[in-house]
Amino acid sequence: MKRKKFLLDENDVPRQWYNIQAEMPNKPMPPLNPATHKPLHADDLAHIFNQECSRQELDQEHAWIDIPDEVRDKYCYYRATPLVRAYALEKALDTKAHIYFKNESTNPLGSHKINSALPQCYYCKQEGDTNVTTETGAGQWGAALSYAAKLYGLEAAVYQVKITMQQKPYRSMIMRTFGATVEGSPSMSTRAGKNIITADPNHPGSLGTAISEAIELATTTPGCKYTLGSVLNHVALHQTVIGLEAEKQMEMAGEYPDEVIACFGGGSNFGGIAFPFMRHVFDGTHKDTKFIAAEPNSCPKLTRGKFEYDFGDEAGYTPLLPMFTLGHDFKPANIHAGGLRYHGAGVIISQLLKDGYLAGMDIPQLESFAAGVLFAQTEGIIPAPESCHAIAATIREAKRANVEGKAPVILFNLSGHGLIDMPSYMSYINGDLANYTVTDDEIEKNLEKVPLTIDK
Amino acid sequence: MKRKKFLLDENDVPRQWYNIQAEMPNKPMPPLNPATHKPLHADDLAHIFNQECSRQELDQEHAWIDIPDEVRDKYCYYRATPLVRAYALEKALDTKAHIYFKNESTNPLGSHKINSALPQCYYCKQEGDTNVTTETGAGQWGAALSYAAKLYGLEAAVYQVKITMQQKPYRSMIMRTFGATVEGSPSMSTRAGKNIITADPNHPGSLGTAISEAIELATTTPGCKYTLGSVLNHVALHQTVIGLEAEKQMEMAGEYPDEVIACFGGGSNFGGIAFPFMRHVFDGTHKDTKFIAAEPNSCPKLTRGKFEYDFGDEAGYTPLLPMFTLGHDFKPANIHAGGLRYHGAGVIISQLLKDGYLAGMDIPQLESFAAGVLFAQTEGIIPAPESCHAIAATIREAKRANVEGKAPVILFNLSGHGLIDMPSYMSYINGDLANYTVTDDEIEKNLEKVPLTIDK
Repeated sequence: MKRKKFLLDENDVPRQWYNIQAEMPNKPMPPLNPATHKPLHADDLAHIFNQECSRQELDQEHAWIDIPDEVRDKYCYYRATPLVRAYALEKALDTKAHIYFKNESTNPLGSHKINSALPQCYYCKQEGDTNVTTETGAGQWGAALSYAAKLYGLEAAVYQVKITMQQKPYRSMIMRTFGATVEGSPSMSTRAGKNIITADPNHPGSLGTAISEAIELATTTPGCKYTLGSVLNHVALHQTVIGLEAEKQMEMAGEYPDEVIACFGGGSNFGGIAFPFMRHVFDGTHKDTKFIAAEPNSCPKLTRGKFEYDFGDEAGYTPLLPMFTLGHDFKPANIHAGGLRYHGAGVIISQLLKDGYLAGMDIPQLESFAAGVLFAQTEGIIPAPESCHAIAATIREAKRANVEGKAPVILFNLSGHGLIDMPSYMSYINGDLANYTVTDDEIEKNLEKVPLTIDK
Repeated sequence: MKRKKFLLDENDVPRQWYNIQAEMPNKPMPPLNPATHKPLHADDLAHIFNQECSRQELDQEHAWIDIPDEVRDKYCYYRATPLVRAYALEKALDTKAHIYFKNESTNPLGSHKINSALPQCYYCKQEGDTNVTTETGAGQWGAALSYAAKLYGLEAAVYQVKITMQQKPYRSMIMRTFGATVEGSPSMSTRAGKNIITADPNHPGSLGTAISEAIELATTTPGCKYTLGSVLNHVALHQTVIGLEAEKQMEMAGEYPDEVIACFGGGSNFGGIAFPFMRHVFDGTHKDTKFIAAEPNSCPKLTRGKFEYDFGDEAGYTPLLPMFTLGHDFKPANIHAGGLRYHGAGVIISQLLKDGYLAGMDIPQLESFAAGVLFAQTEGIIPAPESCHAIAATIREAKRANVEGKAPVILFNLSGHGLIDMPSYMSYINGDLANYTVTDDEIEKNLEKVPLTIDK
């Protein structure tokens, strides 16, 4: 019998996160103060984030950062997650490619997000904070944060993108079951929210609007820190447990990936699986590994955005970040992959993309759901609409390999399951879903509002 | 660091199911032909079920039955499931009891049901059938069957209890994503359904009504076999993989359970975890293990039913089964644990209950959800409303142990997660849920319709 699952013992759960910043050939450019355009230091971030995450955010020295024992202890409840060889999918594709996926859908709350929610809440608790707040799109991050906050005895307030809250009502129920307060964004409870609603009463919300509201709450509430589920360097850092485990598990399978694929919203699950493998590109042991970030073609910052200094949120509360962006008030189409509706790419990823270490691949909505249904019907797991993009990219690569007569080893990250996203699947199956595109003019127009261009 | 998870390698996934019938001190009484009251043989069942399951149903000789390689191969995609020490729950209960749970929520579709869906569909395919049909309550079984049918290239038609279909709309969406046809029961598409609706147009449905409809479809459609997700002996047989794995995993933990607990609808997840441990009661190596089946107090067949020959369905299509029953047309209250809304207990369990090998424990709805929320907030997994009953029973036992100054080892089966059941949790959290009771008079009145009493 062929082996399908590669499991690691608790002892093999990583004890350190991999900080790719320390080993990148070109370091990321610094975040800037929007008023002065001066580089920010960890202390400047620490009125928004907890101190340790602020430090990790800018750490370009230490390639390995210890995972606190108490966090690792919590990881061990569910990690290591399985690595699975997708034989049934391979058969359906009639491909010689070897397809593996890292199954983060087995995590509590069903996605990789818990990997960063735990350390962020742990550090807040350690530093004496009492409250945390955040934004959430599809709700995967909000659910994970609500659970982690409860575990460490913190109060959680979550701003959820309004359109996604309506599309996926179960996720706010999950957050409330863990005792969190949930508000649809844009809301009337913050200045940022009120401004957005005043300008556009029907604004569906986006990660950008929700981030603005959460930052405002954090900076105006004593003892309350903001936490982010993607985009930032320290979030991707925490997610490297995914790739570090996968590396050991691929070794158990006796293979090394020719291609590493993940969906892409802000970069946390992509960085999580990709960075540990990318270090072997840097050290020359596996120079030719291909990295593919699968984004929705309706929110194409990697494939059609520009590398500029932009805000991370709609209202302009964040520092200026050097990122591939569509403009901070880009309004993504109402696709069901709520976690991918974000205008920019994280700073590390943006630098790596600029330097040619990864490629974006844009996937239309219908192609993503077709891939998701095929995966469900073969592998038995209904994938999150976000993860469907990674599967669609994997299927494209496998089909290309068929045409070219090759048999690559493909590893993708199944970032989460889609059981809470069933109405999206029903819309797809009933033929009610559409593809969305975005014109060059729209992108150009939005990019005019970028606050600081980068001299190339 | 204390070890929390006990994992088994693919090699340790069982190769045989444990058939408790062969080792029970008192064998179950035979199913009877309703017209003649004569014992049925496997051939008599094989117009409803596939032949191999019909054979397994009545097998009182072979204690171990080989799992077909092709089924075991499919099991290995997700089995062995983890055994977890619930340290966080223990801490919240301030108990010295050691609480372990077998985590069947990590299975595809989120419950133990897949363990029997796979072999049932496999045997149908082997025997040349093209279609399968079934009933489902909460939808866990229907979802698992839909996936298994797709995997083996069979068409699936599912009758889902109408009230649960409305309470939990996502589960029918899951079934449809796997390509199954889903109909609310009672429906107008069968004679049985039409009769029930004619008598009571507002009938909310029950597992009993849905079973009648599915059996009618199977017996009137060439190439179509009926499959059942609980109650029957062969279903519990397939589920023994749970307990067989748990036995090895408890050994890894260096402990043996003093108590084994599971929720109880028809008996499949209870039998699955309990039977392998019960064999050590029979062989004398662990004589004092206590077995607790947690049922809703609104559907109390174990604690308040009678041991009689009764139908397994509402319309009276099944053979007469010797079971603890509340009467085959008992209408369970509309509790959210849809999988426990069934009037009778499986034949094996009924005999074992009569012989004193297990005890029923009846749990009110509000107590079950309180237990579920505590478990979610401590262990991070939102349990299925059905599984909440097992958790509530576990909490009762841990608290009793505290009072008595004892420290028992308790093992319970987490039969599934509740992510699809979030509206139920919201109703509970919003204070909209009630307890239901059933009066002695109601039970007595229903039991008058039992077709054949057993001389005690």
